[in-house]
Amino acid sequence: MQVHIVHAHPEPSSYNGALTETARRALSDDGSTVTMTDLYRSDFDPVERETHYQHRSDADRFAALAEQRHAWNNGSLPGEIQSEIDNLKQANLVILQFPLWWHGPPAILKGWMDRVFVSGGIYTSRARYDTGYFRGKRALVSVTTGAPHQAFGPGSRGGDFDTMLWPIHYSLHYVGFSVLPPFISYGVQGHGYSYEDEDSLHTRLKLNLFEWRSRLSSLETSAPLRFPGWDDWDEGGKAVRR
Amino acid sequence: MQVHIVHAHPEPSSYNGALTETARRALSDDGSTVTMTDLYRSDFDPVERETHYQHRSDADRFAALAEQRHAWNNGSLPGEIQSEIDNLKQANLVILQFPLWWHGPPAILKGWMDRVFVSGGIYTSRARYDTGYFRGKRALVSVTTGAPHQAFGPGSRGGDFDTMLWPIHYSLHYVGFSVLPPFISYGVQGHGYSYEDEDSLHTRLKLNLFEWRSRLSSLETSAPLRFPGWDDWDEGGKAVRR
Repeated sequence: MQVHIVHAHPEPSSYNGALTETARRALSDDGSTVTMTDLYRSDFDPVERETHYQHRSDADRFAALAEQRHAWNNGSLPGEIQSEIDNLKQANLVILQFPLWWHGPPAILKGWMDRVFVSGGIYTSRARYDTGYFRGKRALVSVTTGAPHQAFGPGSRGGDFDTMLWPIHYSLHYVGFSVLPPFISYGVQGHGYSYEDEDSLHTRLKLNLFEWRSRLSSLETSAPLRFPGWDDWDEGGKAVRR
Repeated sequence: MQVHIVHAHPEPSSYNGALTETARRALSDDGSTVTMTDLYRSDFDPVERETHYQHRSDADRFAALAEQRHAWNNGSLPGEIQSEIDNLKQANLVILQFPLWWHGPPAILKGWMDRVFVSGGIYTSRARYDTGYFRGKRALVSVTTGAPHQAFGPGSRGGDFDTMLWPIHYSLHYVGFSVLPPFISYGVQGHGYSYEDEDSLHTRLKLNLFEWRSRLSSLETSAPLRFPGWDDWDEGGKAVRR
């Protein structure tokens, strides 16, 4: 298997760092080739802006999607975007590792989607969803959160993970990935923020790394999440019952 | 009324620009004072990272929430963050204007939340949700999307706006805002992407600006969205029936 990990956490010694390192070792040990993009370390700019485009389709008015399409067609995509697309093309499995910040991915990862999923290249009006560019490949979100498991669910304080991850999952589905069920690490607390004592926190987080490792070695048997596709919509995109 | 608009679009002459300009004029004409942060023009850095903190709580290991808390307590928040907090404190109404990119806000606005909603200051474990810092103030999301109205809804191609906007709405609720129903501008197409002819597009988008203006002048009668609060949860944060 060829795996690409996109890592979005500012501190290498963080628990997110441990999850990525665990994945890297576990998958390599199992014979996979693993590539990694550490968005913070590579100083990735998540802001889609005109200065990324040297050869503009329209120099007066910046329309992001039009410039993406133009750059794709002219082979003038920014270097870091082209190389990330190459990483994704090579991979059978893509893992996104990040902490849940404000009910979604950190800005640096949100902008990775804004910039890497290039209009006119990675998707067109026809090549989307089950006919998407990356069809046949799988994607897996691994997310950490500070609050404990019990605080999540519909109507609960932390919110429902199905809803919170829907935007990122559906975006992965949009570009053709089969999206595997997420791996969620609960109660990942910094110093002084713990809901429990340090020993119990340490033991629990260590066990969680074993679960992550075990999850990664059983991916073959893991069915992807169900999202609607072209057969589920009418011409205008409305959901229809078949 | 004191209104603060956070504008997140790279092109001033865009339809998002027209929506913000319409809001600015309509609200000023009605006697409100309007402030605005144009995230692109002010070159806002949406990435929460260690270089934003000059006086670190821990110089060896970067824990974002701990540094936010430390900077808040020591009055050493980055200037652009402090001034944005001041804008929010002054306002009775906050409007977030952005295009829907990958089923959520552009990275520059996601990171505005990552950085401006400061841990230990704008929220603490007790001051959240209906006891949140900005309670008594209202927030309103105004979002544009390229696809037509009919493509949205549960199971439909574009997805369901209640789900897509849940993360940003719930984040606003988390820091205490009463969240008004969103204003959604559908079918906002760039050149060459239109689902309809240019004349009809132009007329429709012009009408939509009138609707936006009329929506803004009737905010007093608009009931906020319902989100759960402390009375709806047990000690652990689980939803309970009362």
